[in-house]
Amino acid sequence: MAPNLHTYYKTVDSLAEPFIDRLRQAVAIPSISADEERREDVVKMGMFLKSELEKLGAHVEARPLGKQPHKEHLELPPAIIGRYPAKKDESKRTILVYGHYDVQPADLSDGWATEPFKLSIDDKGRMYGRGSTDDKGPVLGWLNVIQSHKEAGIEFPVNLLMCFEGMEEYGSEGLDDFIIAECKPGKFFEDADAVCISDNYWLGTEKPCLTYGLRGCSYYSIEISGPGQDLHSGVFGGTAQEPMTDLVRVMGSLVDTDGKIQIPGLYELVAPLTKEEQSLYKDIAFTMDNLYESLGSKTGIYPDKERTLMGRWRYPSLSLHGVEGAFSQPGAKTVIPAKVTGKFSIRTVPDMEPPEVDKLVFAHVEKAFKSLNSQNKMNVFLQHAGKWWVASPKHWNFTAAAKAVEDVWKVKPDLTREGGSIPVTLTFEQATGKNVLLLPMGSSTDAAHSINEKLDRRNYIEGIKLLGAYLHYVAEEPTK
Amino acid sequence: MAPNLHTYYKTVDSLAEPFIDRLRQAVAIPSISADEERREDVVKMGMFLKSELEKLGAHVEARPLGKQPHKEHLELPPAIIGRYPAKKDESKRTILVYGHYDVQPADLSDGWATEPFKLSIDDKGRMYGRGSTDDKGPVLGWLNVIQSHKEAGIEFPVNLLMCFEGMEEYGSEGLDDFIIAECKPGKFFEDADAVCISDNYWLGTEKPCLTYGLRGCSYYSIEISGPGQDLHSGVFGGTAQEPMTDLVRVMGSLVDTDGKIQIPGLYELVAPLTKEEQSLYKDIAFTMDNLYESLGSKTGIYPDKERTLMGRWRYPSLSLHGVEGAFSQPGAKTVIPAKVTGKFSIRTVPDMEPPEVDKLVFAHVEKAFKSLNSQNKMNVFLQHAGKWWVASPKHWNFTAAAKAVEDVWKVKPDLTREGGSIPVTLTFEQATGKNVLLLPMGSSTDAAHSINEKLDRRNYIEGIKLLGAYLHYVAEEPTK
Repeated sequence: MAPNLHTYYKTVDSLAEPFIDRLRQAVAIPSISADEERREDVVKMGMFLKSELEKLGAHVEARPLGKQPHKEHLELPPAIIGRYPAKKDESKRTILVYGHYDVQPADLSDGWATEPFKLSIDDKGRMYGRGSTDDKGPVLGWLNVIQSHKEAGIEFPVNLLMCFEGMEEYGSEGLDDFIIAECKPGKFFEDADAVCISDNYWLGTEKPCLTYGLRGCSYYSIEISGPGQDLHSGVFGGTAQEPMTDLVRVMGSLVDTDGKIQIPGLYELVAPLTKEEQSLYKDIAFTMDNLYESLGSKTGIYPDKERTLMGRWRYPSLSLHGVEGAFSQPGAKTVIPAKVTGKFSIRTVPDMEPPEVDKLVFAHVEKAFKSLNSQNKMNVFLQHAGKWWVASPKHWNFTAAAKAVEDVWKVKPDLTREGGSIPVTLTFEQATGKNVLLLPMGSSTDAAHSINEKLDRRNYIEGIKLLGAYLHYVAEEPTK
Repeated sequence: MAPNLHTYYKTVDSLAEPFIDRLRQAVAIPSISADEERREDVVKMGMFLKSELEKLGAHVEARPLGKQPHKEHLELPPAIIGRYPAKKDESKRTILVYGHYDVQPADLSDGWATEPFKLSIDDKGRMYGRGSTDDKGPVLGWLNVIQSHKEAGIEFPVNLLMCFEGMEEYGSEGLDDFIIAECKPGKFFEDADAVCISDNYWLGTEKPCLTYGLRGCSYYSIEISGPGQDLHSGVFGGTAQEPMTDLVRVMGSLVDTDGKIQIPGLYELVAPLTKEEQSLYKDIAFTMDNLYESLGSKTGIYPDKERTLMGRWRYPSLSLHGVEGAFSQPGAKTVIPAKVTGKFSIRTVPDMEPPEVDKLVFAHVEKAFKSLNSQNKMNVFLQHAGKWWVASPKHWNFTAAAKAVEDVWKVKPDLTREGGSIPVTLTFEQATGKNVLLLPMGSSTDAAHSINEKLDRRNYIEGIKLLGAYLHYVAEEPTK
């Protein structure tokens, strides 16, 4: 019994211009969470959401999250939480949705073709602007769903709980504790029956997907120090053991050119590939050209799509990010750095338990350093770890979303995992104990975090339809 | 027939306070050549020198050196050149001296214990201030020599030519061509019989030295690129070959923990150690504790002084300076850098011809990269090369200086080489065709280029005596 969504879709189409204008207003607020100077704008963006939601009749609260850690002069932007309809309908399911209203830094001088904080729409309907796809478009999507129902006079199919944060691009400071607290009995999110997060992207540009897994990330530092201060390589070169010499050798022992991690025991923690899982990859809408296009080169590790997707989703990877403390500017400086810190991270997958990974990493790094017979001092430590997440795509939350995709996009969605981490996903799963669905709006070419971030008009408008349809199909799913 | 320098020394002592005050005035001018904003102060410092020299009766010219390369809005500070006495005495030798009036950057927030641009003298006579030892103290030394002769009524023993530049700490932009031009017949420096540069330091803190050799420096970059832009390690880790992975492996192939260069053929270019040379090292006033003190650690390569000095002076060394393009900030960023540039330099010694060194370096790096079987692109190139320099310490220029040291400091100077490069030394040697002497004023603990740079009052005042005595002994040396 599929809900009749025809009127809803028509209403969304008729409101397309006001919805784009709403996005234009949001993009114009440079809510850069990483930039202290922009904190007022982040708060302004939160207040814009609150005010828009209130106009739509939602119950909304701006909840303070306290001071920013290590920056005691700086108040965190509030969590904007809301409920629609304002009064709970006990006969309906309750869906908790999450998004973020802060954005990555952006400046015209970074190479943007248009002003980053002015929504610029080209003749192909690409709507350029910082935050357009990450994550203002999807957040406003939920507001637009409410508005479309109101204007069409359609009864809202579920109780919608909203949680919009303003620090996602800066580590979601303060949010975890807040979510955990608000999911407790008697608190704002206690009724959630399932969670839906729209903050990721299609695998390609044509086919929507539902995402049921994410890799974790364990981030490590290798600190090597020797001299009391930076040295002049003319005066000391050839007489002192140099930390940088040791560091590149230790870093060079971690992974090879083909991405094969050299840490003994690590691959043994990985869940074996079953035949069932293996069979899933060949149907997924992804080609090697998709990879090459997004890489901007043909320097992929694997020649085939299946192994590439597995490399991204279900196997661990190790990336060397850089070196702190060494010379990193253009030009030539003849310094011998006294203390260098190599940074690398491992993307983790089922069943790698982070503490087990740490143990293997530390043992390997210590052994590699020891083999150098250096008098320098080495210290390896974990900077932070976020665990992988895998949900059941057979849950009604996913089934409903799949039906909504078929209805709106006329295609079955790919069931995908992602290589990256969205730590809040795991937090919601653990705090609510309910199924979490990642339901992306934007496509793989949206350039979130890069210059010329955009959201296609089609993805925005059809995405609003999709979010609404998802809520209707959720309401229709059997309760068992 | 040693000159009677007694009156001269007494005069220097009696003028100590005005001489310190002159240094105080000079240190107060923040003539930081690397900082565009301070260019006016660099020029002001040049004008201060010009004015002081004119008051002393010298002929002085401020010679423009044109625009700063790659910064066409910026005029280079002038070369301040002078002659004393203003009219040449044809019966006397002509000595060309060089120094620089610009300084390294300095800011109290870097960790200075005192204001860097205010000369602060502690109870041990340590005169702290940026430029005190590098190189304002030595430059003013020559002015003080002139003043002491005038006030004592002693005839000046030589024709003194002076060349003081304002861009030494920023690559001596514009100076090479100027020196070469001014050493030509009919030009300002054409008469120079020898050159004396006071811009280096004693090996330790107690015993003066004369320096007759410097290592060269060939600075290389290894660029490795693959993806079209920086990538997110969650999305691309495990699917793309990463330039940073290749770079650390290539960098790791260059040198080992004990400083042994791994480039085949390189050591074969090095002049063999003769018994005569080997015997020189054991008498030099240097201990392993000197090394450990300046290192700030015990992470030296060799346990003995002889091999340590050879490692610094007469063998090549290879230092890895850093990586451009990778993540270099504190904290954690999960970027896969698209293009990384590793920087390293080789300190070269006789008889390593720079083009030969380049050939071996390029061949090794290319082979090391090829062995990785990477699809990334690698490019290795020379950023700049400065050749090593070795002078004859048996020349009268050195003999005179050695006598002056004995007279002032009551000790025979060590004959030393240096691990670093002072490119202008080679330029002066080649442009004049005459012997060049490095005659340091400051000691090894002066912290040139670091925080808390200082010049000991004793080194300054006895140094002024030394520079004057050197000129007198130069005048006494047999002309053959």
